[in-house]
Parts: sequence; C-alpha cells; structure tokens
Amino acid sequence: MDEKTVAVPASFQDLLQLPLIAHLATVRADGSVQTNPMWFRWDGRRVRMTHTRTRKKYRNVQGEPRVALSIVDPGNSQRYLEVRGVVESIEDDPGARFYQSLREHYGSTGTPILDADVRVVLVIRPAVILGRSPGEGEGPPGTERSTAPAPA
Amino acid sequence: MDEKTVAVPASFQDLLQLPLIAHLATVRADGSVQTNPMWFRWDGRRVRMTHTRTRKKYRNVQGEPRVALSIVDPGNSQRYLEVRGVVESIEDDPGARFYQSLREHYGSTGTPILDADVRVVLVIRPAVILGRSPGEGEGPPGTERSTAPAPA
Repeated sequence: MDEKTVAVPASFQDLLQLPLIAHLATVRADGSVQTNPMWFRWDGRRVRMTHTRTRKKYRNVQGEPRVALSIVDPGNSQRYLEVRGVVESIEDDPGARFYQSLREHYGSTGTPILDADVRVVLVIRPAVILGRSPGEGEGPPGTERSTAPAPA
Repeated sequence: MDEKTVAVPASFQDLLQLPLIAHLATVRADGSVQTNPMWFRWDGRRVRMTHTRTRKKYRNVQGEPRVALSIVDPGNSQRYLEVRGVVESIEDDPGARFYQSLREHYGSTGTPILDADVRVVLVIRPAVILGRSPGEGEGPPGTERSTAPAPA
C-alpha cells in the first residue's frame, strides 16, 4: 500500500468485492450535484468505473474531481460504505476491455458494445472511507472511519 | 399540482411508492460532495426524509440547498430515477411522528426513538426528474425527462 492508500474497515470488505451498485455523486458546472448508480471494481486501493467521453459526468469530474459514492448492503440498508475521494485519472479503455470485465462481474448479458471507442475508466482514489452499521439493540448507529494520510 | 410541481414519468411511479433506498447527494462546506442512503416518502409533489439537527447533512443543506438523489429498481439496476431538486424547507417533527411513519413504511423494528427532540423533516422539491431504463435489445438506454416549469 502506498502512502495515499486508505484502509477499508475489515468488516466492510464484502461491499467492495460483491457486484453491488455504487451511487456516484458528482458536482456539476453550476455547483449543484447529481447522483447516478454505477458499476465498479475495487483493487484494494482504487475504485474503477466505466464511463464514456460523451456523457455529462465526464465533464463534471473534469471540472471538479472530488466525488463521493455510497454502497449499501442489499440485505441491510443500514449497513453501508460511504467513500469520498478524487478522480485521480481518466484512462482510455482500448477495445472496452475494462467495460467487458465489468459486465462479466455483474453477470450482464452480452449485447454488442456499441460505444467502445469512447469508453474510459474513471480511477477514484479514496480519501475517506466510512463503514456504517446499524446500532446494536437500542444503541446508536456505528461508524468505522479510515482517512488517507496526508501526502508526504 | 402547483406550478412548481414536476411530473414523475408514469412508468417510474413505483420507484417512489415502494420502500426503496434513495441515495442523497449533498454539497459540503468545502464544495465537495457526500452521498448517503436514506429512507424517504413521496406525496406526489415533494420528497420527505427524516434527519436530525445534529448531523453533517443538516449543515450541508443549510449551506447549499440544491441536492440530488437516485433510486434504483432492486430488480434491475439499469432502471432508476434520478432527481435533482432543492431542500425547500426543514420542518420540525414533533414527537418524531414522521420518523415513526417512515419506520412503519420500511418495516423497521420498533426500538425506542432516542433522538425525537432533534428530529426534523427535509422537504425536497424536485426540479428535474429523469427516469432511466436499459435499452431494448441492442439499443441505447432510454431517458424520460420531466423538468419543473419556471416559477410564475
């Protein structure tokens, strides 16, 4: 792990490994927000999402790379991960290979990929990862927090 | 309906009526975003969410009332509603009655409500409602858009 890596709370690793939906919040040019459900992969250090050069969010993250996402346990909506981070890079996706691997991860049926030439990969570096869980009995909800160390 | 009401695309009404999770994006004081899963009710004109005066999002929406939310069909993650709007008012919730009605809507078990004295209701007026659906066959994804008329 490099100095910019945030640890995921151990009891929340599953939410990053399973093919769940992440809701991605981005800031628009006028300073308002939008949020959209997105597929993602986690490699232990970065979140990757597929996107295209032609859509609104692409322009949003170029203007304001700080983004947030939330991922809920489908079996318990009060157990979730909240991630805040930054779009560290936007990479080409030659032949839409990353997009194809995401479709396989999510078990999506294989209609032809018609927009391979404009597909990109959003690479998100988490700055803060919060694991939220419902309270025990009458207790308050719990939070496990991981924050990136300041860059050296 | 008043002049500030946005119509919900007819084929997406279910996503506002069912006890689904809305992911609410808010803008923080430093201009970055956060997103959190939230319970909600829809009365045909406004989205209502329970909240408390003591949490971060309460300060966020006082500073920047423009918010966004996304609600996914649990049976088909490519079918979802994207709502952008404004927190029109923050109302007291005497005795946490609204919070209690939400818990019943969501089938949540009834542990005592310990924070009734700080509970409030966020009232969100949609400005834009987008209904997104997967493409038919090899076609592109579909969008149905409703935008609020300008105030008279």
